[in-house]
Amino acid sequence: MVVRAAVAGASGYAGGELLRFLLAHPGVRIGALTGHSNAGQRLGALQPHLGPLADRVLEPTTADVLAGHDVVFLALPHGQSAAVAEQLGEEVLVVDMGADFRLTDAADWEAFYGSPHAGTWPYGLPELPGARAALEGTRRIAVPGCYPTAVTLGLFPAYAARLAEPEAVIVAASGTSGAGKAVKPHLLGSEVMGSMSPYGVGGSHRHTPEMIQNLSAVAGERVTVSFTPTLAPMPRGILATSSAKARPGATYEAVRAAYEKAYAGEPFVTLLPEGQWPATASVYGSNAVQIQVAHDTAAHRIVVVSAIDNLAKGTAGGAVQSMNIALGLDESAGLSSIGVAP
Amino acid sequence: MVVRAAVAGASGYAGGELLRFLLAHPGVRIGALTGHSNAGQRLGALQPHLGPLADRVLEPTTADVLAGHDVVFLALPHGQSAAVAEQLGEEVLVVDMGADFRLTDAADWEAFYGSPHAGTWPYGLPELPGARAALEGTRRIAVPGCYPTAVTLGLFPAYAARLAEPEAVIVAASGTSGAGKAVKPHLLGSEVMGSMSPYGVGGSHRHTPEMIQNLSAVAGERVTVSFTPTLAPMPRGILATSSAKARPGATYEAVRAAYEKAYAGEPFVTLLPEGQWPATASVYGSNAVQIQVAHDTAAHRIVVVSAIDNLAKGTAGGAVQSMNIALGLDESAGLSSIGVAP
Amino acid sequence: MVVRAAVAGASGYAGGELLRFLLAHPGVRIGALTGHSNAGQRLGALQPHLGPLADRVLEPTTADVLAGHDVVFLALPHGQSAAVAEQLGEEVLVVDMGADFRLTDAADWEAFYGSPHAGTWPYGLPELPGARAALEGTRRIAVPGCYPTAVTLGLFPAYAARLAEPEAVIVAASGTSGAGKAVKPHLLGSEVMGSMSPYGVGGSHRHTPEMIQNLSAVAGERVTVSFTPTLAPMPRGILATSSAKARPGATYEAVRAAYEKAYAGEPFVTLLPEGQWPATASVYGSNAVQIQVAHDTAAHRIVVVSAIDNLAKGTAGGAVQSMNIALGLDESAGLSSIGVAP
Amino acid sequence: MVVRAAVAGASGYAGGELLRFLLAHPGVRIGALTGHSNAGQRLGALQPHLGPLADRVLEPTTADVLAGHDVVFLALPHGQSAAVAEQLGEEVLVVDMGADFRLTDAADWEAFYGSPHAGTWPYGLPELPGARAALEGTRRIAVPGCYPTAVTLGLFPAYAARLAEPEAVIVAASGTSGAGKAVKPHLLGSEVMGSMSPYGVGGSHRHTPEMIQNLSAVAGERVTVSFTPTLAPMPRGILATSSAKARPGATYEAVRAAYEKAYAGEPFVTLLPEGQWPATASVYGSNAVQIQVAHDTAAHRIVVVSAIDNLAKGTAGGAVQSMNIALGLDESAGLSSIGVAP
Repeated sequence: MVVRAAVAGASGYAGGELLRFLLAHPGVRIGALTGHSNAGQRLGALQPHLGPLADRVLEPTTADVLAGHDVVFLALPHGQSAAVAEQLGEEVLVVDMGADFRLTDAADWEAFYGSPHAGTWPYGLPELPGARAALEGTRRIAVPGCYPTAVTLGLFPAYAARLAEPEAVIVAASGTSGAGKAVKPHLLGSEVMGSMSPYGVGGSHRHTPEMIQNLSAVAGERVTVSFTPTLAPMPRGILATSSAKARPGATYEAVRAAYEKAYAGEPFVTLLPEGQWPATASVYGSNAVQIQVAHDTAAHRIVVVSAIDNLAKGTAGGAVQSMNIALGLDESAGLSSIGVAP
Repeated sequence: MVVRAAVAGASGYAGGELLRFLLAHPGVRIGALTGHSNAGQRLGALQPHLGPLADRVLEPTTADVLAGHDVVFLALPHGQSAAVAEQLGEEVLVVDMGADFRLTDAADWEAFYGSPHAGTWPYGLPELPGARAALEGTRRIAVPGCYPTAVTLGLFPAYAARLAEPEAVIVAASGTSGAGKAVKPHLLGSEVMGSMSPYGVGGSHRHTPEMIQNLSAVAGERVTVSFTPTLAPMPRGILATSSAKARPGATYEAVRAAYEKAYAGEPFVTLLPEGQWPATASVYGSNAVQIQVAHDTAAHRIVVVSAIDNLAKGTAGGAVQSMNIALGLDESAGLSSIGVAP
Repeated sequence: MVVRAAVAGASGYAGGELLRFLLAHPGVRIGALTGHSNAGQRLGALQPHLGPLADRVLEPTTADVLAGHDVVFLALPHGQSAAVAEQLGEEVLVVDMGADFRLTDAADWEAFYGSPHAGTWPYGLPELPGARAALEGTRRIAVPGCYPTAVTLGLFPAYAARLAEPEAVIVAASGTSGAGKAVKPHLLGSEVMGSMSPYGVGGSHRHTPEMIQNLSAVAGERVTVSFTPTLAPMPRGILATSSAKARPGATYEAVRAAYEKAYAGEPFVTLLPEGQWPATASVYGSNAVQIQVAHDTAAHRIVVVSAIDNLAKGTAGGAVQSMNIALGLDESAGLSSIGVAP
Repeated sequence: MVVRAAVAGASGYAGGELLRFLLAHPGVRIGALTGHSNAGQRLGALQPHLGPLADRVLEPTTADVLAGHDVVFLALPHGQSAAVAEQLGEEVLVVDMGADFRLTDAADWEAFYGSPHAGTWPYGLPELPGARAALEGTRRIAVPGCYPTAVTLGLFPAYAARLAEPEAVIVAASGTSGAGKAVKPHLLGSEVMGSMSPYGVGGSHRHTPEMIQNLSAVAGERVTVSFTPTLAPMPRGILATSSAKARPGATYEAVRAAYEKAYAGEPFVTLLPEGQWPATASVYGSNAVQIQVAHDTAAHRIVVVSAIDNLAKGTAGGAVQSMNIALGLDESAGLSSIGVAP
C-alpha cells in the first residue's frame, strides 16, 4: 500500500523536516505541498536541503489543493488547523502538527492561546499508556508539542509508578528551530550564537498546560508544573531536566525499574546505561529519545534528563510515527533511531 | 599606589582572563607569571589574545618565583593552593581562584574533594550581606566557584527576605571554558557544538555544598539544593535558573522589592526591568550580572534567572573585584560592566 | 545479495559515520568492528548516537578479526592500511578511507607523508571521467580525501573543458570533525567556537598533491594549486572556494554548460540554479554536493564554490558509493541526497 | 579636554560597539543617541549589554538633535550620511561609518551603490602610508569597510614593496554581525549555525572597488581583485586569506621583511611569530589585527592571512582610532589590543 500525503505549510522548519522523513518512507508518495506567502515559489529556494523536491512549486493552502490525498499534514500557525480540517473528509487522515487539538480542557486552551477551543484529537505520543490503542485506525491526530514530548517522556514513568510528588520542576533548553522560521530580531544568528537566555518564565509558556495534562493523567492526580524554557545556541535539540520530590520509599532501584518497564520494547526511547547521560547531538536529526535518571538523596528528588530533536521526535518524526500507527504501517517506517553526530 | 601582582597558573583560561583584567587595571603592575607543564614557554603561544604580554615567558610555580609581590593570584588545580600559600608571607594578599578555601565545613570538603581540608578564607562575593566588611583589609581571599556565584546571587535575596522555602532547585547551563583547558574527548569542538548535555546530575557536582553553605547562611536555616549543571555550545557564560516554593505571603511585589533592595547600589548587578530577561551574551567578557525574577502563581514558585560570564564575574573578575576591596582600591578598577555583544 | 562488512577503526568520526550509512544499507550486514586503544569497549560508550549498535564490543584490529568478511573498511591513521590490507585475501573488497593508496607518485607521497609509498588503488571519486569504469568490479578502493573531494568536484569540469588556466587558488573552510577525534588543545570547543583560523598555509597541507593529481589528469597538463584550509566553528561541512584565470573565450555560458554537462545524471551532485549558492547546512549528514559557478569579468577568473559534508561525501559516504559501484549494487544504496537542515 | 560625541544609529551593531568603546574612552562624553524606527525606545531594550546607558532614550536622527556636539558618528544605512553631514558645521568632526565617502571614483560608487556619489573624505585606515597625516586635524573621516580593512592590511605591504603581481585573490569569512541587525531569513540563527555559505561571488560585493582602490594606490598600478566573502557561524570576526603571485625575486625573507617594516611600531597590528597563525578569537572585541605570511614556492604565491573583529577594528574601533588621530588624542584611547578569548 502506498498512501498519498499532502503537506500544508511545507516551507517552514516542521514542514521541511516532515518532507525529509516522507522522502525516506517506502509507503508514502508526496502529493501537494502548500504555503501561504510562499505559494508559487520553488521548494528548492526555500528548502535547499531537499534536493529531490527542488523543482516542486508551492500551492496555496486551500481545501481544493489538499483534497484527494490519503493523509494531510497540517504544519500551520496555531489556530488555523480547524478551518482546514473541517473541509477535509472524515476518511482522510489529518495530522495536526500545531497545538489546536492537543488540550482537553477548553478553559486551558483559551487561557493560553486566546481563541475558542477547536476540540481534542487522539494524542500522538505512542509511548504513553493507552496511546497506541487510541491512535490505531484514527483519522485525526494531534501531534504533541516539542517540549511536552521531551518532558512527558522524561517524567511519566515516575508518575505512573507513584514514585514522585505531584510538583514537577522543569528547565529545558531548546535549539532555535523550535521558534520557527519567522524572522524576529532575537532569533538572528548574531543574537543567539554564544548566548543562552530564557523566555516564557513563570508559567506563561503555552506548553505548560499540555505537560500538566499529560502528567496528571498518568499520575491520577493534579500535577503542578514549574516550566522554564531557554533558548540555546544550536539549531536543533531539546535537553529537558525534570525533577520532583521522591515519594517515601522511592529508591533509586525502584525508579530505574519503573523506567526500564516503561520503555521496554519501545523502538525510539533508550534508557541509557548507568553513568551515561543524554546529549542532544546523539539524537540529532533522528526520532530517538535518550533518557537517564538519578536520585538525589540529599535533596530528596528524582532528577530525569531527556534529549530529543525538537523537529524530529518533537514534531515531524512524532507525526510520522503516529501516522504509521494510525494506518497500520510499520511504526518505524521513514524514521531513524540513529542521530547525526558529531 | 601601584601593586605588583603575580599569577600562578597563567596559561589556563582563568589565568588568561585574569591577565586581561589586570592589564586594564591602572593600579596593578604584572609581575611573575608561572605555569606547570608550560613553564619556559612564551605566553604568546599559549594566550594569543594577550598581545601586550606575548613575549613574557612562564616561570615554574614556586614560592621563590612568587615571592616579592604584593598580590599573588593562584589559578591552580584544586588541592594545590595551600602548599603554595603557606610559603607566602602574611603581608602578601593571596587570592585563591581554586576551591580550596571556600568551604567552612571540613566534612563537606572531604566528601566532595577527597582530600584533607585546608581551611577557610574570607569569601569573595562582595554582594553577600557582610561580605565587604570581611574582605576589607584581608590578606587571604577565597574566590567563589562560577556556578555558586550565579546561583547565590540569583537566590540569596529571596532567602534573606524569608520569601522562599528552603528547598532550592537549580538547573544551570555553562559555556565550555568552565571545564578548563585540559584536553578531554567530550570537550572537543566536534562534540560540544550543536549539543547540550548534563553532567554531575543528582547532587554530585562539587559546587553543590558551596551553594548550600551560602544560601543556608543567609536563610538562617539549612537549605537543600538540587543542582543540575549542563554543558552548552558556547565558550563562555552561565545561565542559572533557580527556583523554590514561595512562602505564604510571598507576593511578586514582595519578591521584586527584596531584589531591588539587595542590589541597590551594586556596581555590577542589574535587576532587569520587568519584561526583560537575562542573556549570557549581554554579560560576555564583563563582570556584570543580570537577574530577573518571576512568581509562578500556578506552581507556587519563585523563579529567578541569573546570567554571568563564568570566567569574568564567575572567576577572574570576581577575584579582581575582591582584591580591589581588600586593598582599598576602587572596587571597579580594571573591570567593566559592559558586555561584548553581539 | 547481502554482503558482510567489517569496519576497522569504528570508534572514530569516519568509522561512526560509515556505520550510520551501513545501518541504512539494505544490502549490508555489519560484521566485526575494531578499535585500537578502545578495543574491549562498548560501542555505545564511544558512539552514543548509534543506538542499534550500542551493545557491540570493539575487537582489536587484526587480520584474524577482519577475515571472513566480503568488505573491509579501513578507517585507520595514515600509514597503517597497507599492513592490514596485505593480510586480507584478494577476493575481499578493501576500502581504504585513509590516504595510503591515493597518490600515484611515490615522491609526492614521501614528501608529504614521510613514509614509504604503499601503492595506488582505484580512486573512489565516481564523478571523475573514467572513474566508474575503474571502480566496477575492483577489490581495492582508495577513498579520496575530504578537501580533494570538494575541490576536485568544484574545478574538474572547468579543466576538462579547457576553460581555466592551470593555476588554481583554493581556500576552504572545514568543520572540526575533519581533524578527527584525537584530543588536541586547539580542537577544544572553547577554542573553536566563535573562531576561524587557518592551518597548513603555503602549500604544506597533505591534500595538496592529491588535488594537483586530480586536476592535472583532467586538464592534460600540470596544474599548480595554492591551497589554504581553515578551521570553521561547526562540526561538519566543507565549503571550498576555488578559482582560476579564465582562458580566452571562456564565457560564463561556456562555463555553465561545462558544469551542466559534467554533472548531468549524477545522483549526488547538484549544479544550483543561477542566483542560489551552496551552504554546508544543505548537505549536512548527506552524500550531496552543491556547486555554483561565477565568472568574474573584472578579475578574469572563474570562481566555483562547492559544499560537501566532510564526513559523508568527503569520507564515509564516498566510501559507500564506491563500494556500491564495485559490488554492482545500486550506487545510492544506504546513502541520502537530502541534508539535515536547519 | 573632553569632547562631546553624538551617535546617529545607536541601535545597530556598529553603533552599539562604538558606544562600548566610547564608554571606555577617558576623553569622550556621550551626548545624543539617535535611531530611526527605534526613536523613543530605551537603549537598554535594544542594547542590553550596555548597562551604563540602559536608561538613555533614542532620539530621532535630525540635524537639530546632532547639533552642538564636537564629534558626530554616523552609523546609518549607505546613502544617508551626506544629507546629515551637510547640515553639521565644518568645525564638527563627522565620522562616517557607512560607505558614502570612501571611494574616490564616482563611477565606481555609482556602479556598486546605484546612487549619486557624495564625495570623498580622508580615509580612516591609519596604517596605510600617508594616512595619519591626512587624518590629523581633519573634520571629516570615512571609516573603511570591514573586509577592506582586513584585506588591505593583509596585502598592502606586499604591494608597497613591489613583491606581488597585481592580481589578488581573496576569500574571507565573516561573522554574522557584519550583515547588521536587519532581520532577514538567511541570517536567522537556525540558518547560520553549523553552516558556511558564500555571497556576492564573482566580483559583485560592494567592498571590491574599495580594496582595488587601496591596493592600487599602494602598488602604483591597477590591481585586480577577485573577492569572495563567506558567512561563518560566529557572531564576530573576519578571517581573510589573500594571495597573489610572487614577483621574481620575492623570497620569503623579503616578504617577511616588508611586513615587519610596514607594521613596526603599529599599536594594533601584530605580525605573528613564524609558525603561529591568526585566529579571529584572538582579536574578539578588540582593535587588534593579527597577520601571518607564507610563500608557497610550488604555486609561486604569497599567501597572507589576516584576522580582525569586523565590528571593532573593522568598524567602530577603526572609527575611534581615526577620531583620536584627528583630535590629537592618544591614538589608543578607548581601545584595547587584547581579545576576549576563549
